[in-house]
Amino acid sequence: MVGIVEVSPRDGLQNERELLETGAKIELIERAVAAGVRRIEAVSFVHPKLVPAMADAEAVMEGLTRAPGVSYIGLVLNRRGFDRAVAAGVDEVNVVVPASDGFAKANQNSTTAALTEVAEEVLAEAAGRDLFASLTIATSFGCPFDGEVDPERVVEVARRGAAAGAKEIAIADTIGVGVPTQVRTLLDGVRAVAPEARMRAHFHNTRNTGFANAVAALEWGVDWLDSSNGGIGGCPFAPAATGNIATEDLVYLLHRMGHPTGLDLDALLPIAGFLSDALGYRVPALLPRAGAFG
Amino acid sequence: MVGIVEVSPRDGLQNERELLETGAKIELIERAVAAGVRRIEAVSFVHPKLVPAMADAEAVMEGLTRAPGVSYIGLVLNRRGFDRAVAAGVDEVNVVVPASDGFAKANQNSTTAALTEVAEEVLAEAAGRDLFASLTIATSFGCPFDGEVDPERVVEVARRGAAAGAKEIAIADTIGVGVPTQVRTLLDGVRAVAPEARMRAHFHNTRNTGFANAVAALEWGVDWLDSSNGGIGGCPFAPAATGNIATEDLVYLLHRMGHPTGLDLDALLPIAGFLSDALGYRVPALLPRAGAFG
Repeated sequence: MVGIVEVSPRDGLQNERELLETGAKIELIERAVAAGVRRIEAVSFVHPKLVPAMADAEAVMEGLTRAPGVSYIGLVLNRRGFDRAVAAGVDEVNVVVPASDGFAKANQNSTTAALTEVAEEVLAEAAGRDLFASLTIATSFGCPFDGEVDPERVVEVARRGAAAGAKEIAIADTIGVGVPTQVRTLLDGVRAVAPEARMRAHFHNTRNTGFANAVAALEWGVDWLDSSNGGIGGCPFAPAATGNIATEDLVYLLHRMGHPTGLDLDALLPIAGFLSDALGYRVPALLPRAGAFG
Repeated sequence: MVGIVEVSPRDGLQNERELLETGAKIELIERAVAAGVRRIEAVSFVHPKLVPAMADAEAVMEGLTRAPGVSYIGLVLNRRGFDRAVAAGVDEVNVVVPASDGFAKANQNSTTAALTEVAEEVLAEAAGRDLFASLTIATSFGCPFDGEVDPERVVEVARRGAAAGAKEIAIADTIGVGVPTQVRTLLDGVRAVAPEARMRAHFHNTRNTGFANAVAALEWGVDWLDSSNGGIGGCPFAPAATGNIATEDLVYLLHRMGHPTGLDLDALLPIAGFLSDALGYRVPALLPRAGAFG
């Protein structure tokens, strides 16, 4: 069984111009959990100047009614974020390192190598506290500044992250340029240096390759796939583009291929309407328009 | 090398409320050919009451400047259409039979078995004239009236079509419900009964499974994939839904996976703008919004 990590409250909302109120974020999280989601990236603990939409991370975590058996994840970029995540009582942290220097420079005025060191410290600290820590390698499939990203850069971040204690490693197609051949190359490369880690993949459907990539990752044997209710979650560098692969479309695809997910499509589908109303535009997921089948 | 059959002039336009003028259809066809398309479903010879948007099929064929080496295809449903296609000078015919009785009844007040007989006659006539004939099996992945379609129904139509002289057989996901596991099951089944025929697949992205299906068909070894510039081409039974898989998005995907198509992405991309202007809405293809990469 492949698991789905719901990322709409974090990746889905972080670039929205229409900032959702804390209460709406909590409603989104609780609706997703009610539909069967068991891992959810609820918030990110980044500097509010960098990502204003996530400034209320502590308030979201505090206001949530936590459901048993559900892991509420906080994204962190550094030790300061990690400390905030621990204080807010997350169940796991997701530490992000970009594989490309251009992205590291633009977002954090740093480099992949320097941010990998930062991640190593956080991962070791999490391991010491017995807090589950995942490592997400951003821009694994391509960078808006550097163009193509050498897979060896991704593998090197994975190798160091696994050595530092990451329990799970994700390849992320941050700007939605990847294709299935890349998915397999990167997963093979990461597994070779991190054989003990669980494997996760994160796709955007910016160029209509996201679901083909998800199938490639599934058939490769990935443990978890990230997706976003409604398919929300653009990239600030491609403002008109479609966002994360949509959870409801992914669930339809997986179920019809014979892979149970534990998610209830009937409960998921109305979330798109809630998000469209809250954000003021029609979200890109297709199943809410076309209807399920079979 | 996988080939692309451009279907926007036929499947893309047949359900549009905004009927394109003959001159605009000719421009669409000539633009696609200029971008490298070598097979194009230019028109369909169906009763104008059934598909008003195709009533000018003869005028389109007559007005076209034919490019050397390009095959202009006419879709036909019966002998009357076949005779019109021959008179109009098409390079090949595409004979369509639905795999489900519900679809056969709704569109032609008939059955799969009866329409297969009609197709057999047309395929034999084409073979006698040495005119290339393809057989497309509609609703192979599911029917808006009957729901699930037994793959054996698809295989039986393929078996009879191949015996009657079809040079190529296509499985078509008319309403966009299919998934990669179905793609492989159906292609295996068809090949077993039609080992000499070329194989083609036709996908709609109605539920975001179309590109994953295209990759599954590609990796299975299909010879041709249908797609539509701009991703136009809805289904009359799902009016808000996305249409055929978009040619520009498919070309991006295939090229980046290392499969040449002979198509020029730079020449394809502006066609989406032409179509959006002509149809009065933004077409669903994503590459024209996000831009190419790599």
